[in-house]
Amino acid sequence: MHTTAMNDIRACLFDVFGTVVDWRSSVSRDLAAFAKEKRISGIDWLEFAVEWRKLYQPSMEEVRSGRRPFTILDVLHRESLDKLVARYRISGLSEADLDHMNRAWHRLHPWPDVVEGLQRLKTRYIIAPCSNGNIALMVNLAKRAGLPWDCILGAETARAYKPMPDAYRNSCRQLGLAPSSVMMVAAHNNDLRAAKAQGMKTAFIPRPTEHGPGQMTDLAPDPECVDLPATDFVELAAKLGAIPLR
Amino acid sequence: MHTTAMNDIRACLFDVFGTVVDWRSSVSRDLAAFAKEKRISGIDWLEFAVEWRKLYQPSMEEVRSGRRPFTILDVLHRESLDKLVARYRISGLSEADLDHMNRAWHRLHPWPDVVEGLQRLKTRYIIAPCSNGNIALMVNLAKRAGLPWDCILGAETARAYKPMPDAYRNSCRQLGLAPSSVMMVAAHNNDLRAAKAQGMKTAFIPRPTEHGPGQMTDLAPDPECVDLPATDFVELAAKLGAIPLR
Repeated sequence: MHTTAMNDIRACLFDVFGTVVDWRSSVSRDLAAFAKEKRISGIDWLEFAVEWRKLYQPSMEEVRSGRRPFTILDVLHRESLDKLVARYRISGLSEADLDHMNRAWHRLHPWPDVVEGLQRLKTRYIIAPCSNGNIALMVNLAKRAGLPWDCILGAETARAYKPMPDAYRNSCRQLGLAPSSVMMVAAHNNDLRAAKAQGMKTAFIPRPTEHGPGQMTDLAPDPECVDLPATDFVELAAKLGAIPLR
Repeated sequence: MHTTAMNDIRACLFDVFGTVVDWRSSVSRDLAAFAKEKRISGIDWLEFAVEWRKLYQPSMEEVRSGRRPFTILDVLHRESLDKLVARYRISGLSEADLDHMNRAWHRLHPWPDVVEGLQRLKTRYIIAPCSNGNIALMVNLAKRAGLPWDCILGAETARAYKPMPDAYRNSCRQLGLAPSSVMMVAAHNNDLRAAKAQGMKTAFIPRPTEHGPGQMTDLAPDPECVDLPATDFVELAAKLGAIPLR
């Protein structure tokens, strides 16, 4: 990307699940710890987390297609969890237990480079998530993980799930910025392709273990939709001219 | 307020214009500096700022009444500015000049106790504005003033201008919290009355010079709608058990 184009950037928006946080190990460890406490045994919680995530796209597709009015991710996650609890024949869970399990997505852990990178980027840019997670999920996650967002944007504020154009367009509009002044940061080429189609700048950060060992997808940036590749958030901050802290 | 009720509080939402920032002196000084640069003379910018603010409630009333679809405050502010520029017969302003003047509301200065109070409150509570200002205005203002919000809530995310019930209800809902777990903080009794009617807790902070010397309104909390009075944001933090920093 030309330096002149980078100079126009005023805000960086971030995909969260996979890009900012390691959902797979976080959800599985969280559920495993809860299961131990509840004396639930015989379940592979890593597999459970992956199965839960597999229901993510189909649940949002109901909203994207217009078959269902906009519904926040906490509700979609809970519906998927209820299906899995039945499928795995887990019994004896109270409403409070299920709510606690569903909020595993509010307790995800960031990749090790994230907090330092965001702190640096915040000194020079507006930084915000542009995630399919709802506001409460994003706020609770940020509060625990120390993510210093300037505001929370994404599906709930845009009333559209990525990769629908409105998810990106409305987020830029709500910042009062042209898409060309906003950089979308993600570990997923399809997210960046959709952002670029709306005129945003794009940065790719590889997260080669998001899906565990043997991951075959999104190992490298697609040059057709990626303006700026970086190895992690700290290198991204450096490439975008955000000074080291202290 | 009983200690038990205070223990339930998870988030504090703040009115901004008047409560967090001194709009009157900020707007007038900002415009006066710009006018000097542009060699515009003969205008009392303190009076101009007050006249601008007088058009604030009528402009939102068009939206509240349903006569006009939801329109962000930056647009309402600009329409009011255009009226005033005509009324004061100020000529020779470019589109860029008018946009700069309109963004005086993005450059407001906080009262001196605000940043320390918010930093303390943030260690224990979710803190967010619940203002009629739009997201871009709130983000830009916070970035300049160092307001450490966890997220931006208010009219644009709730799609309703205070004191409409949805402005408060949707803000609590977007945090995933019952209104009884959320405290509304304002320097205006009518804002707190509307918040309390939706089940929120309320705190009053006096800003006796918001409207300049001789202010006659909102000098004291109305005991009918105020749960917790405090002299400023630092005292509020102390009363809510938020520890001093370092």
